[in-house]
Amino acid sequence: MIHSDVSPFRWDEAQRLLILLDQLALPETERYVPLNTVAEVAHAITQMLVRGAPAIGITAAFGMYYSARDHWKEDDKRARIAADKNRLAETRPTAVNLFWALERMMKTVDAHLHDETPDAILAEAHQIWREDIAMNQAMAIHGADAIGQVPNILTHCNAGALATGGLGTALGVIREIHERQKNASPLHVWVDETRPYLQGARLTAWELMKDGIDCTLITDNMSAYLMQQKLVDAIIVGADRIAANGDTANKIGTYALAVLAKYHHIPFYVAAPDSTFDPTLASGDQIVIEERSGDEVVLVKGKRIAPEGVKTRHPAFDVTPHSLITGIITPSGILRPKA
Amino acid sequence: MIHSDVSPFRWDEAQRLLILLDQLALPETERYVPLNTVAEVAHAITQMLVRGAPAIGITAAFGMYYSARDHWKEDDKRARIAADKNRLAETRPTAVNLFWALERMMKTVDAHLHDETPDAILAEAHQIWREDIAMNQAMAIHGADAIGQVPNILTHCNAGALATGGLGTALGVIREIHERQKNASPLHVWVDETRPYLQGARLTAWELMKDGIDCTLITDNMSAYLMQQKLVDAIIVGADRIAANGDTANKIGTYALAVLAKYHHIPFYVAAPDSTFDPTLASGDQIVIEERSGDEVVLVKGKRIAPEGVKTRHPAFDVTPHSLITGIITPSGILRPKA
Repeated sequence: MIHSDVSPFRWDEAQRLLILLDQLALPETERYVPLNTVAEVAHAITQMLVRGAPAIGITAAFGMYYSARDHWKEDDKRARIAADKNRLAETRPTAVNLFWALERMMKTVDAHLHDETPDAILAEAHQIWREDIAMNQAMAIHGADAIGQVPNILTHCNAGALATGGLGTALGVIREIHERQKNASPLHVWVDETRPYLQGARLTAWELMKDGIDCTLITDNMSAYLMQQKLVDAIIVGADRIAANGDTANKIGTYALAVLAKYHHIPFYVAAPDSTFDPTLASGDQIVIEERSGDEVVLVKGKRIAPEGVKTRHPAFDVTPHSLITGIITPSGILRPKA
Repeated sequence: MIHSDVSPFRWDEAQRLLILLDQLALPETERYVPLNTVAEVAHAITQMLVRGAPAIGITAAFGMYYSARDHWKEDDKRARIAADKNRLAETRPTAVNLFWALERMMKTVDAHLHDETPDAILAEAHQIWREDIAMNQAMAIHGADAIGQVPNILTHCNAGALATGGLGTALGVIREIHERQKNASPLHVWVDETRPYLQGARLTAWELMKDGIDCTLITDNMSAYLMQQKLVDAIIVGADRIAANGDTANKIGTYALAVLAKYHHIPFYVAAPDSTFDPTLASGDQIVIEERSGDEVVLVKGKRIAPEGVKTRHPAFDVTPHSLITGIITPSGILRPKA
């Protein structure tokens, strides 16, 4: 079984604390921040110290444990925990794993409302994490089987260990392909820098280099040129929410890659655990796209790159219609959306 | 006749000096740098204090005058001026306007080799500049006629006044459309930031804001999303070299836009003066693509955005096949390449 040393958090059982790797400080600094309250968890998600749909879900699950811990002896504990759940649900709108984890934790709270301690709530958060690790492993195998041996894969944003509880979704598949090929024809990965937040440059490049996987950083607008030059054999990305018909919300720029992949006849895969599917939405049109601050567009590492007062847009995600997706890699196998 | 206050250089006749606006310092600072030698001209082009295919050609033409001025009284002046021409030709490989201007200046040198003074050489540099201004005006009219009334145009890189001697190529057309619509339904321009060098964020946004044209800055990977949302009615870009069949080299990211435009049925125009056409090349396959330093990818305003030691690619241009181009706007009218 393959493994990565990279993780967005660890659990300190002695202190019962989630210790978060601050992804805003990467790649320069590996700074760890303990989260001990619902407010700290909400802040970490909103400010993107932790990001990536599955990792957000797991972090929020531990937030729900903190809420239970703090209110367990109070008479109106259910109402208070429900209020904290709503607070956590307001942190970010697009990734469905967040809402999925919160609902699941709330059900656990209801099932154990009369327990002496909230230990069952903590156990459920750990269970969500463990399941994510297992789903990453299963996706890695299915994805590597589907994609087969390839010289060059391109990925966007960070759908890696840093975005999940385990190996990563897209990067889990890449890790498995790397493992299978490394002694014969080593895999090479093109890493989109992923403006404006630079998750590719800051996180994916860091994560792949740390695990010894050959990679090259490019700006997002170079990918089409590399496809034209036949230097991209497959594209694999993660997902933030997948509608019932397979339409997929993921980091802004994903839709462009899918159109470019179609034009160049390059397989385009999405990798996502069960918690990313939202069967309540018939199609991607209904997915809410988060509009983030324009400061993230005009400031890079605190340096201004555009004139004062310039107008900006910052849709943080886009929706790729299922017809452009070769396959969705899930823990149960490959879904091939009907065109 | 429309006008812009923006220009990449001015000529000081008293000192006979080309005074360059340092585009590396924009948008924070409007710093002017006098160029007085061939070496200074070559340095300014290589380091991109001046950029944009037509502006590079004009700058190099004044460099040729400096060479003539410095060697006019020497016996081997032709050989020395030819050596300086070679030196200037080595500054950047992709934009053909540079080589075109150098050849034209060398012919002028040969025609006036026995003149008392090199004044005819200086006059020819001014003539190249004047012709560029006139070609910009003509393209603006043809382009605005072809594109018609539109709410939203998207542009990439800077094909503006800063890239030419006059109104700009793509931005000349945009200025003309803005002028025609401003009292009825004002034009809005989407400005691609244009990584890695951020010509859109630093230069195009600055130039349009300075001329009072409504614009919004986006990261390059947002354009497909805006096209999907039907918020882009036309795309217009400049060019660095156009082969005989209409294949067009332009700033990296242009090819991606052309593919995305095709997919979304959006007109995709290139605007270029005569000096950008290279009839010696049958197709775009033969255009040399400049590979620039990876530092320009990993450093933004001097701040590192990726791990130390990360590998990078930096093709500065790409080639868009003529089949993806709706029309090439030239000073003589619209060329419609055969698909």
